[in-house]
Amino acid sequence: MRANKSKRAPSDRTVGRLTLYRRILNEIADDGVKHVHSHALALRAGATAAQVRRDLMVVGYEGTPRRGYGVAQLISALTSFLDEPGGQPVALVGIGNIGRSLLAYFVGRRPNLSIKAAFDVDPQKIGRVINGCRSFDLSELDREIEAQGIRVAILAVPASEAEQVARRLVDAGVVGILNFAPVALHTPPGIYVENVDVTMSLEKVAFFSRRKKARTAG
Amino acid sequence: MRANKSKRAPSDRTVGRLTLYRRILNEIADDGVKHVHSHALALRAGATAAQVRRDLMVVGYEGTPRRGYGVAQLISALTSFLDEPGGQPVALVGIGNIGRSLLAYFVGRRPNLSIKAAFDVDPQKIGRVINGCRSFDLSELDREIEAQGIRVAILAVPASEAEQVARRLVDAGVVGILNFAPVALHTPPGIYVENVDVTMSLEKVAFFSRRKKARTAG
Repeated sequence: MRANKSKRAPSDRTVGRLTLYRRILNEIADDGVKHVHSHALALRAGATAAQVRRDLMVVGYEGTPRRGYGVAQLISALTSFLDEPGGQPVALVGIGNIGRSLLAYFVGRRPNLSIKAAFDVDPQKIGRVINGCRSFDLSELDREIEAQGIRVAILAVPASEAEQVARRLVDAGVVGILNFAPVALHTPPGIYVENVDVTMSLEKVAFFSRRKKARTAG
Repeated sequence: MRANKSKRAPSDRTVGRLTLYRRILNEIADDGVKHVHSHALALRAGATAAQVRRDLMVVGYEGTPRRGYGVAQLISALTSFLDEPGGQPVALVGIGNIGRSLLAYFVGRRPNLSIKAAFDVDPQKIGRVINGCRSFDLSELDREIEAQGIRVAILAVPASEAEQVARRLVDAGVVGILNFAPVALHTPPGIYVENVDVTMSLEKVAFFSRRKKARTAG
């Protein structure tokens, strides 16, 4: 919140790295590590030590050259920078294969980001509680989003429906969309869209793998 | 295959767009569409028409200015460019939450890319058939990868294990890795790694959503 007032907004890439640093720190904290140097964090995150130090200046916590960063303090600084204090409710649209996977995946994983409402058009999938999340008919989308004050949505509908559903989400008050539909959304300015396309990613890996020689074992 | 001999390798981004075009084309083919113009494809893919035409030159199929591209012909040209003719077997390491989701997600989805072996260290999860895929103990990884000639792997293990497992995959003959572990892999040159981090993506969307004002409905 502080950064919001006094500093330029951090870039998309910086925020991505900050969330990665936090997960790395949580993991090493579980292993009992108390202090970490920027170069160790950089190695795990695929960045340089200078990059790590620059990124972490944004959150307003500095380590010492001798001991590095205090792991617990840095996690706490990252959390107050990245997270909304009371948590942010998330909507999911589309309870198909991807949608169900996400419900299972996010349950309890990030207490701060929990899927509070799921929507579909299939009568079999609505009016239920799936992994702790209530499911609704798509016709109730606008009312639920507004009633719960939801501003973040995950879009996991077929590509042919994605544009229209995105428009309804935005009209209901959503300002950030994580899009799993293999289509580019044309949203109004000011809406943040992040695309995830696992099929594309696997097809790319497969394509480039065909062109490469395996390493000789040894 | 032809492109492999005669042309420079296409970029990562080009291949990504080609796989997206193919999925868009498959979808519009299901709707009975026979021809499509580059600008219509561009709109769906979030590219420009000029970009679409340039990308599609790589696969060696050209449309006509009047009718555009033949949908069926273009799908077929993309498929022979992107896919290995007999299909490519894929290994999955890590049958946790993400791994199980991927097994369910990819079953029958892309006949050309199917997960042929899954690995874990949990005795409960091994020696089974999950969504049509046999699961093995991690100790059998090297033998199975070599026996099945697998060159593509999905890595869905905890971050702390990822580096070590990636090294074993590469030593066994894997040349392309789709990495879901929130850690940067340090692989030898020539290994293609694509990272997918759904948690990071959702955290980014949530972060930027906090900074935006909702659109006034209407």
